[in-house]
Amino acid sequence: MPPHPLAILSEAETNIARDVIIASYGNEVIDFREIYLQEPPKAQLKEYLALEHSGRLSPTSPRPARLAFCQYDVIGSNRVPEFHESVVDVNLRKRVSHQMVGKQHHASLTLSEFDTFIERCKASTLFQQALADFDLPEGFDVVIEPWPYGGPDLTEENRRYFQALVFAQDMRSGNPDANFYSYPLPVIPVMDVLTQEVIRVDRPATGGKGDGLFDQTFKRDIIGHCKASDYIPELLPHGTRQDLKPLNVAQPEGPSFRITDESLVEWQKWRFRVAFNPREGATIHDVWYDGRSVMYRLSVSEMTVPYADPRPPFHRKQAFDFGDGGAGNMANNLSLGCDCLGVIKYFDAVVTGADGTAKPMPNAICLHEQDNGIGWKHSNWRTGRAVVTRLRELVVQFIITLANYEYIFAYKFDQAGGITLEARATGILNVVNIDANKVSEYGNVVSGGVLAQNHQHIFNVRIDPAIDGHNNSVVVEESHAVPMNQRTNPNGNFYQITKSTLERACYLDAAPQHNRTIKIINPHKTNPISQNPVAYKFQPLPTQLLLADRQSVQAQRAQFAQHHVWVTKYRDGELYAGGRYTLQSQVEVDGVADAVQRGDPVEDTDVVVWNSFGITHNPRVEDWPVMPVEIFQLMIRPADFFTANPAIDVPSSKNVSSRLVPDECCRKANI
Amino acid sequence: MPPHPLAILSEAETNIARDVIIASYGNEVIDFREIYLQEPPKAQLKEYLALEHSGRLSPTSPRPARLAFCQYDVIGSNRVPEFHESVVDVNLRKRVSHQMVGKQHHASLTLSEFDTFIERCKASTLFQQALADFDLPEGFDVVIEPWPYGGPDLTEENRRYFQALVFAQDMRSGNPDANFYSYPLPVIPVMDVLTQEVIRVDRPATGGKGDGLFDQTFKRDIIGHCKASDYIPELLPHGTRQDLKPLNVAQPEGPSFRITDESLVEWQKWRFRVAFNPREGATIHDVWYDGRSVMYRLSVSEMTVPYADPRPPFHRKQAFDFGDGGAGNMANNLSLGCDCLGVIKYFDAVVTGADGTAKPMPNAICLHEQDNGIGWKHSNWRTGRAVVTRLRELVVQFIITLANYEYIFAYKFDQAGGITLEARATGILNVVNIDANKVSEYGNVVSGGVLAQNHQHIFNVRIDPAIDGHNNSVVVEESHAVPMNQRTNPNGNFYQITKSTLERACYLDAAPQHNRTIKIINPHKTNPISQNPVAYKFQPLPTQLLLADRQSVQAQRAQFAQHHVWVTKYRDGELYAGGRYTLQSQVEVDGVADAVQRGDPVEDTDVVVWNSFGITHNPRVEDWPVMPVEIFQLMIRPADFFTANPAIDVPSSKNVSSRLVPDECCRKANI
Repeated sequence: MPPHPLAILSEAETNIARDVIIASYGNEVIDFREIYLQEPPKAQLKEYLALEHSGRLSPTSPRPARLAFCQYDVIGSNRVPEFHESVVDVNLRKRVSHQMVGKQHHASLTLSEFDTFIERCKASTLFQQALADFDLPEGFDVVIEPWPYGGPDLTEENRRYFQALVFAQDMRSGNPDANFYSYPLPVIPVMDVLTQEVIRVDRPATGGKGDGLFDQTFKRDIIGHCKASDYIPELLPHGTRQDLKPLNVAQPEGPSFRITDESLVEWQKWRFRVAFNPREGATIHDVWYDGRSVMYRLSVSEMTVPYADPRPPFHRKQAFDFGDGGAGNMANNLSLGCDCLGVIKYFDAVVTGADGTAKPMPNAICLHEQDNGIGWKHSNWRTGRAVVTRLRELVVQFIITLANYEYIFAYKFDQAGGITLEARATGILNVVNIDANKVSEYGNVVSGGVLAQNHQHIFNVRIDPAIDGHNNSVVVEESHAVPMNQRTNPNGNFYQITKSTLERACYLDAAPQHNRTIKIINPHKTNPISQNPVAYKFQPLPTQLLLADRQSVQAQRAQFAQHHVWVTKYRDGELYAGGRYTLQSQVEVDGVADAVQRGDPVEDTDVVVWNSFGITHNPRVEDWPVMPVEIFQLMIRPADFFTANPAIDVPSSKNVSSRLVPDECCRKANI
Repeated sequence: MPPHPLAILSEAETNIARDVIIASYGNEVIDFREIYLQEPPKAQLKEYLALEHSGRLSPTSPRPARLAFCQYDVIGSNRVPEFHESVVDVNLRKRVSHQMVGKQHHASLTLSEFDTFIERCKASTLFQQALADFDLPEGFDVVIEPWPYGGPDLTEENRRYFQALVFAQDMRSGNPDANFYSYPLPVIPVMDVLTQEVIRVDRPATGGKGDGLFDQTFKRDIIGHCKASDYIPELLPHGTRQDLKPLNVAQPEGPSFRITDESLVEWQKWRFRVAFNPREGATIHDVWYDGRSVMYRLSVSEMTVPYADPRPPFHRKQAFDFGDGGAGNMANNLSLGCDCLGVIKYFDAVVTGADGTAKPMPNAICLHEQDNGIGWKHSNWRTGRAVVTRLRELVVQFIITLANYEYIFAYKFDQAGGITLEARATGILNVVNIDANKVSEYGNVVSGGVLAQNHQHIFNVRIDPAIDGHNNSVVVEESHAVPMNQRTNPNGNFYQITKSTLERACYLDAAPQHNRTIKIINPHKTNPISQNPVAYKFQPLPTQLLLADRQSVQAQRAQFAQHHVWVTKYRDGELYAGGRYTLQSQVEVDGVADAVQRGDPVEDTDVVVWNSFGITHNPRVEDWPVMPVEIFQLMIRPADFFTANPAIDVPSSKNVSSRLVPDECCRKANI
């Protein structure tokens, strides 16, 4: 059987695409960035899925072509790489489309570019000269942490650059996981990727309140006021706490889910497919509940992390963690018993080496059930009868590491028809050196000599709904006070619900003061009980939007971060809120703002809803050395989609493994 | 050993208080409402706690008196109950204070008053005449659901009344838990409590859009268009789902917590006391982490649920679920394996019968640990070494049932020094009859003939902090954009953090657009790393505030629901955001708004911070017949209180009970 049209490219398919691309060229060197499934055009996939859902699929049914999207550099005799994108039909073994990407865009970075950068820094006289300004204690090594260059100033030529933050690592313990982030060095080497030369070493300021933006105040003893702050258990000065008893999740009868055909998940009336790509990580497709369509595709589309320290070159610290290097590329290999508890299904992924060869990426996604407390309860006080059910969730999780930082993303499905998109931020703060005994209005001192700069994290979630079908509308619903008046509100307790259907692509912001709710409705399907159109809804999280000045490069390249909700008409391939090419962008191109700009009609059609939310993260000392998770939850819920609580038939059976606390844990005080 | 000053009154102590009160009167009948611990004045308790924490407590140390707060009616020969409150010193067996409560206030209700009301309705000719307007099908019984009367209109005499919603119950199955809420009858009997007579039967409208506020449009066949909507498993038409496999939480080595002296909980460096009273339910006291004081007292202070249907008498549907009847009085008896999983410690409570006799209330509070996913993680991409810890939480939970509705309250402590106050709303919507085939702008039709009216739930949490001591200040911190300018923000990426210390008692609202954060600081203690004052912080949840017209009775009696944050100077006994006497209040008296009105200085003193949040609940069909939980979380977090992430020493050991999914759960598709 051929693979499902949404199945990720197998290693064999990936390697076919590689071969087709290489064969298209002569003597040029082909340096691969990515090869991954180009999802079928929606028109084709809809037809296929319709057959699949109606049980009419046969081996001879028409199937969308298996297409490989290939990104690679072509390096000719002039040694100047050109960035190309091709689509290969894997079964036909044929390149079906091809373009050279314009010079105004940069290809996303690869980790091998980072490796080269590190080597080049080490070999750079310029870099060594800069380091010579510092006295490092015996036993300390220099660690180079490559970063995207951020958005170049409008005054500079937009060549392909990388920058790096630099740290010292105390190697006296011999432990390669000693936390080097606690010893930041104020040098930022910049490499021209084309020439592979370190062209300059920026010297950021290390001052505090009262010092100027450009004041160079550092001392030769650059980390004398820094101290170890380790997180690796064997390096903790007092070891780990010993009084935490194990808490085990056991599922003696196995999980309640079933996986068919590699990617099809069935659980508690839900049915959806899990896919993966190097850009977005795990994506969710073709989501149904109890035989009814809910979503066509759900994904984390982009995120940006702009830093607020105005001292150059820190204004270029702005990551696009999905567009710059690919969230999928940065996915962790997950471990049994660490990243989740219970019975776990892992999904493997495939990524691409520089030579285009497929590389397996094991355990990139995990799937498991978890208990989230009480699901619903009612006690009849007349009879004393209580019925209580647990809230079981199915979690599709992936975790990405971006140098110092990590994000944990989870799509959570529950028995009441709800979908929650959860993001957890953890990892190590991005930090820079600050002189001894100074404080800063640009961040917080979280360890001696370590300034954690203020920054924001703004996520964008892309919701491609299919509420009982593909033609949907978006309704903005609000609740408003009504002045007391004899005719409609004689006692002043009435409030009014307003509903307006969006006609054209647009953006709008959260308005919790009006209880603003975004409802995605099917205007052709009426709930037989309420007579409202069937819908799913969410309340946009009213988190602070991007703070950078609208004219700044930071803001221009992150327009998606300037409004909470964006509504567009579906277009094939329009997946990325910040645009396809974010690395070193100076302005957002073909992102969600441009899509809105088209002004497409969005009523009763194939709409897409994008939601931006995040956190203004002014670091706490408690975020150091590894930050406790900050949790964000976007809750997407049915709203008159069903004819009752879909979880009403969840059994209320008593869990037989629960125990009363043993007597020895409860004792009388001595006094 | 005498009990700890915060220990709830024992049954013996309660009965002593009863005896002292009864002995203070002659022939009068004493009808008890409540007897519970009057917590010691803070000045005394602070002294005691200081001895306790310094290990200097001895059997001869001074102890605050054990005081019983007693609320009761005195019924003399005129048979008119007078509402009295006394404080009894239990050890001295002496009444130490006494007042008769003014007629402008009503005592909170007791369930025995409800029982009387039901009996009187059944016996009432007026009520029977009203019912005679309807034809009920064979086998249906009438169910009377007593309610507080709400806020009386300003034009009516504020006598003590009760009202009831009335339903029909299909008893043909013989099951007393058949869901009667699906058969609402449009009659609302009102009883004068003094005369115990049903004085009138209100006839609410049953119309829909287009019908007037007072139109009587009901038909004799009043529930012909209603249908069964049961939640009891044996009455579900299709039974319960069968494919949910057990998920067990096992703690083979027991819990990580220890309970000493009945109420002292020690867990993962936390140390606090759990108490209980009939008004607030579970309360948390004297909270320390790793030998440092964090909170003096934490409680859910009040909540109000105003309904928005303007048709009289629905404007009087407004519950104060803490003040009207006492959340503690309504607490569920919790069950092992149903209300929580794992190893559970239950705390019992004591409530009071009408004759003043103590009645044990078993399992009123549960305490257990739970896993909440990943706590922190970092992977070193150079070495591949990942360190990941789980987020273990300790949960103190109680659940209250208020006729149709339930709330689940949990104080959650985590290993990173965080405290989360969680409220879950579930249970059955409060509903009224609506004519066949009509819809309404006052609510949503959730079942045939069943209108679930729009309403709000607004909670208030009272935070009495003790951040490294009792004298604290409150700082409002915000993040603001700064226009691009050469001097301070040359590239436009800078944003500014503003901090202002509150000088006087005041209220303020959530402002997520400014990232408004409330920090409770100790101005005398500086974090040695950041040089900021040590603090705990929270972001007020920016939920919609009370919508009722400011001049309405609904709004006047719920001033606490009109702003998110209230800051007051501590006063003994000032615990209730909506005032001590909410039952039938027409205006909030001695609530948090009055406390703010005093304009006390609140800098560097004993401050209290109150946070109101909630939900505008415009019902969904999915909320019927029992609503899936809606979850609210107020997150209180350390902010430069510690010198590092307090959870950094949590062991990252692998959970050995996790399993890979068995092969039989994963299969190839047939097609």
